[in-house]
Amino acid sequence: MTVELPSTQRALVFDTWNGPLEVRQVPVPSPADDEILVKIEYSGICHSDLHVWLGDLKDMSVCPLVGGHEGAGSVVQIGKNVTGWQLGDKAGVKLMNFNCLNCEFCKKGHEPLCHHIQNYGFDRSGTFQEYLTIRGVDAAKINKDTNLAAAAPILCAGVTVYKALKESNVAPGQIIVLTGAGGGLGSLAIQYACAMGMRVVAMDHGSKEAHCKGLGAEWFVDAFETPDIVSHITKLTEGGPHGVINFAVARKPMEQAVEYVRKRGTVVFVGLPKDSKVTFDTTPFIFNAITIKGSIVGSRLDVDEAMEFVTRGIVKVPLELVKLEDVPAVYQRMLDGKINSRAVVDFSL
Amino acid sequence: MTVELPSTQRALVFDTWNGPLEVRQVPVPSPADDEILVKIEYSGICHSDLHVWLGDLKDMSVCPLVGGHEGAGSVVQIGKNVTGWQLGDKAGVKLMNFNCLNCEFCKKGHEPLCHHIQNYGFDRSGTFQEYLTIRGVDAAKINKDTNLAAAAPILCAGVTVYKALKESNVAPGQIIVLTGAGGGLGSLAIQYACAMGMRVVAMDHGSKEAHCKGLGAEWFVDAFETPDIVSHITKLTEGGPHGVINFAVARKPMEQAVEYVRKRGTVVFVGLPKDSKVTFDTTPFIFNAITIKGSIVGSRLDVDEAMEFVTRGIVKVPLELVKLEDVPAVYQRMLDGKINSRAVVDFSL
Amino acid sequence: MTVELPSTQRALVFDTWNGPLEVRQVPVPSPADDEILVKIEYSGICHSDLHVWLGDLKDMSVCPLVGGHEGAGSVVQIGKNVTGWQLGDKAGVKLMNFNCLNCEFCKKGHEPLCHHIQNYGFDRSGTFQEYLTIRGVDAAKINKDTNLAAAAPILCAGVTVYKALKESNVAPGQIIVLTGAGGGLGSLAIQYACAMGMRVVAMDHGSKEAHCKGLGAEWFVDAFETPDIVSHITKLTEGGPHGVINFAVARKPMEQAVEYVRKRGTVVFVGLPKDSKVTFDTTPFIFNAITIKGSIVGSRLDVDEAMEFVTRGIVKVPLELVKLEDVPAVYQRMLDGKINSRAVVDFSL
Amino acid sequence: MTVELPSTQRALVFDTWNGPLEVRQVPVPSPADDEILVKIEYSGICHSDLHVWLGDLKDMSVCPLVGGHEGAGSVVQIGKNVTGWQLGDKAGVKLMNFNCLNCEFCKKGHEPLCHHIQNYGFDRSGTFQEYLTIRGVDAAKINKDTNLAAAAPILCAGVTVYKALKESNVAPGQIIVLTGAGGGLGSLAIQYACAMGMRVVAMDHGSKEAHCKGLGAEWFVDAFETPDIVSHITKLTEGGPHGVINFAVARKPMEQAVEYVRKRGTVVFVGLPKDSKVTFDTTPFIFNAITIKGSIVGSRLDVDEAMEFVTRGIVKVPLELVKLEDVPAVYQRMLDGKINSRAVVDFSL
Repeated sequence: MTVELPSTQRALVFDTWNGPLEVRQVPVPSPADDEILVKIEYSGICHSDLHVWLGDLKDMSVCPLVGGHEGAGSVVQIGKNVTGWQLGDKAGVKLMNFNCLNCEFCKKGHEPLCHHIQNYGFDRSGTFQEYLTIRGVDAAKINKDTNLAAAAPILCAGVTVYKALKESNVAPGQIIVLTGAGGGLGSLAIQYACAMGMRVVAMDHGSKEAHCKGLGAEWFVDAFETPDIVSHITKLTEGGPHGVINFAVARKPMEQAVEYVRKRGTVVFVGLPKDSKVTFDTTPFIFNAITIKGSIVGSRLDVDEAMEFVTRGIVKVPLELVKLEDVPAVYQRMLDGKINSRAVVDFSL
Repeated sequence: MTVELPSTQRALVFDTWNGPLEVRQVPVPSPADDEILVKIEYSGICHSDLHVWLGDLKDMSVCPLVGGHEGAGSVVQIGKNVTGWQLGDKAGVKLMNFNCLNCEFCKKGHEPLCHHIQNYGFDRSGTFQEYLTIRGVDAAKINKDTNLAAAAPILCAGVTVYKALKESNVAPGQIIVLTGAGGGLGSLAIQYACAMGMRVVAMDHGSKEAHCKGLGAEWFVDAFETPDIVSHITKLTEGGPHGVINFAVARKPMEQAVEYVRKRGTVVFVGLPKDSKVTFDTTPFIFNAITIKGSIVGSRLDVDEAMEFVTRGIVKVPLELVKLEDVPAVYQRMLDGKINSRAVVDFSL
Repeated sequence: MTVELPSTQRALVFDTWNGPLEVRQVPVPSPADDEILVKIEYSGICHSDLHVWLGDLKDMSVCPLVGGHEGAGSVVQIGKNVTGWQLGDKAGVKLMNFNCLNCEFCKKGHEPLCHHIQNYGFDRSGTFQEYLTIRGVDAAKINKDTNLAAAAPILCAGVTVYKALKESNVAPGQIIVLTGAGGGLGSLAIQYACAMGMRVVAMDHGSKEAHCKGLGAEWFVDAFETPDIVSHITKLTEGGPHGVINFAVARKPMEQAVEYVRKRGTVVFVGLPKDSKVTFDTTPFIFNAITIKGSIVGSRLDVDEAMEFVTRGIVKVPLELVKLEDVPAVYQRMLDGKINSRAVVDFSL
Repeated sequence: MTVELPSTQRALVFDTWNGPLEVRQVPVPSPADDEILVKIEYSGICHSDLHVWLGDLKDMSVCPLVGGHEGAGSVVQIGKNVTGWQLGDKAGVKLMNFNCLNCEFCKKGHEPLCHHIQNYGFDRSGTFQEYLTIRGVDAAKINKDTNLAAAAPILCAGVTVYKALKESNVAPGQIIVLTGAGGGLGSLAIQYACAMGMRVVAMDHGSKEAHCKGLGAEWFVDAFETPDIVSHITKLTEGGPHGVINFAVARKPMEQAVEYVRKRGTVVFVGLPKDSKVTFDTTPFIFNAITIKGSIVGSRLDVDEAMEFVTRGIVKVPLELVKLEDVPAVYQRMLDGKINSRAVVDFSL
């Protein structure tokens, strides 16, 4: 199998924070000995792409930049030291990469905690371009039967919710509360939780009830109109849910979760609000033997596992396919709160 | 084996909160069908006994009352439905009892979380008397070779620290920080941690350094004089300890622990300060995948396991044996901060 | 609520091993102080009931006897020391009971390993009668909305497969092979495995393929006609299943499972063949880091959890309701291999 | 820091299985971009080195060959893509390497199960030479304060026993039986087990009793003279040990272990006898909920953890330092059963 590669490609570039986003021709890179070259076919558009461009995350990002960190495509060139990849294989490009694979965290399979991380679309040129190099050990293997457009958002959003669900220690048949359940992360989380045998209480704005129940939630709680969330959920779940995952980007639902989670239950914090200081009373926390955990994206293994549910069609991603030129318009709709499904760049459009 | 039982016995009674503590003759009770009668030989004196008497825990205790909840002695009478006990067996009377053994928490071995708990020396007549009835399933089995005086404090203090160490998930060879390490709980915790293969960083007032190192601590950190606790411990432990247990009865060390614990490490809260609200920043907490847990006493199994270390002589309890009449004087010394070892009533004195 | 109780009741009795099975009038027992009286409404008929009657399990059973150990009904009388039960509550009577609740195994929630077990329908009068006493701590709590006829077989068959699935350590999204998948245990196991997020390879006689796939199996393997089971399953599952549970009452499938299970996978033995000695080669076992486990029924907690899936309608039990007088005919059909669904005595017939 | 490197070095080579072992001058290799060059200072001599040379492991080894797979030394040259290593760092060369770091087993931290392994001293030139190249991600980091001679045997023998102890799931305070406890692996295992808080029953030939107890064993069982091993150990440990590790290179102790291990206990198989087929009865195995596991060397993380106990001086390695030229004589003493401590080549001799 031989692939004729062009010397230049289309890329969406910005030169200044919050400056113009332009599609330009840039060179197609060549893979180093331990890298593969991936032809990106789809790239998810994440809220953090917006924030990088706006300059909200300057300490983690560079400028000028090509954004994007949820890329799915095909392998078109392979460095000479790479093992485990063949031309034509489907590959995914996720956020965190370039882990050392040699520190205590990498050796334990917690690569996102490695000190050597570089993030595509943050401090390295990302997936809003047609061709991208990535180390063979960093790229995600995607089954040839997987819907590539749906695979893209799994590389960041999907693995984040899947990992948080694993961290919750909620067993099949037990109950989990998901806050922000109607949003992008939450909508995936409902499906993953059901696929993992959990019973789901979805919490969000009342307008999201039908959406959440349609995805598999057994109960819905209106996060804004319910008079006493803590006692309501405690009663609904006969003693509190076994786990809670906070996807809501707010402080209050985190503090409430610590109060209503079941004795010996686990609360997982995922959402990163600006006002990120929480306060809770340690006395009931100790008497009820509660656990709180932080969870951030997932390992390469978590990505593989999360992807498999999509390959099997168990988890579905509501998609809106757009052109590369449409990304600025998508950012504007994000700012206006008008995105309901996952916008994904389709490079064939 | 027959035991001649008296009809009355000595008990230390108070009729009003903070009122006189008097040794009186009271009837020796008879065990119900599922109970045993234990002749108490030793009874530890715990800080919470003081607080019950002072009236600081009125919502959990009754008055008049015989206090005490760390009793060790011998079985002298056995109810007809009891199995597993023989006359002359050594038995321990711990704080929490009368669990239903039939709820989800009891079935999981988390009896301290059961809704049906009664506490000796709080809402039931306790171990500051010569004879006490207790259900066969609640009493702790103590090996005939165990030092009974040392066994008494294990029934509350010992099991509390042992359980917290298990909850920390710190593996042999990994590092744990113990705050309040020079106190009653901490002194036991250093020994248990070492016996479990952990490497100990002891934190306390500088005057406790030799004491803590003598018990096995590898490092000592002055909790009051160290300029920047967080960076100091992070450096000392090359990235933070794998676990922290807070025995200090204060808010600040809890908040610091969340900052200096190693990525993916666990902080266990045990100490119950009056000012029990903690505040922490969820952003680094999430990025570093930290866990916080509450831990409270332990199950019947935890008691058995904790006791076994004392039986083998691996964990030693520094003891001061006193008469039943001396309890009020011990309370006064506690109030004055003048208790260094564990005061235990010896009923043979 | 008051219940008028009769003084006698119908019971299915046999006086000699393999002797006549007769419905007779026997006294209605009264509960001891720690017992409840359950009016049995449904009682599952298990293969082991047949074997007890035949005298195949003489070292575990007594004679004369009333058999049966899968009883579901209502609480009609309550001993004075019982907590947690009310008249009218739905209750289940399972096989193993009278655990001491005080040994190391009971304290760990492994009651089936306790030395003090008595088995209803084996060495105590069982559930083939209208009224039965049982300790409050032994009876299973059944939700008022649960189908009681379906609940009966969960008390032995259901909990056995549910526990084995938990022991397999197969995570949601991973693959499990179930041998004997088309039988009584296997048919429940397919459903539980799916409800727990596992992907199921069902193995059995070719005639069971449609049945197994209808219950949720993703793949089917003919246990008798497949030329090379080990290489077939290894290929089908791309390296072997993560777990295997052997429900087949035969030696060979146990030995095969050790060969085809995935590296670091777990094989759980449940089926008890007469020829129960297995032989395997420890060299590949060690190089591939395989685990083998034995699993037997389940704890009280396992029963509660297993029951909950039936209450929610996630696990369905194919039922054939029969009269108490029909039990001998059911035994004959078992001997003839002509039972396809679970025969359950309906005492209202 | 600059290091002057020679162009040739001393290496112990054999050209035919069981043929002459000669010290020859061979070229000093240069590290590839992802490799480091290690100056070997010490190399442990393992029984499997002998078996490779004898031709007993032809399917896993090549010829001609430089043997050895327990090398410890210093980093003297670093490939340009290597991170995490500096000139002068202490480094270890272990048996299994060249894992893909990208398959499901590598991603889970089970590198020894990866399909891409190459073994130094088996199918690649090993540590019986002065200079060796190794990938930066494969070499073990050794603390500058560690005794390098003692570190060498930890890279294979030490990590094997440490990993098996972790796999046993025996908790601090619980009891483990070690068979072959007086041998090379066993002598390290006793020390690791004690350091991990386990209580050790050592089993071996009666002549090893003082040796085993001196290393920390609490009990000793004569594996050859004890009349009924199973009942003896069951009684000694009051119901059986919580775990067993079989280091004995024999079939019988594996089968006995399955019989005497405690209910719900774990037996770990490590020793690889020629007659490697074991037979056991699944009926008691199931009723007692026993677990059997295979365990093979350990991961890179396990090596780091095992090494740390040596660095702290908790685990001591009995050493006999020899010259490179002495290896053939050591092989002969191994064949004669006359090696008591660990023979280690000291390249400075």
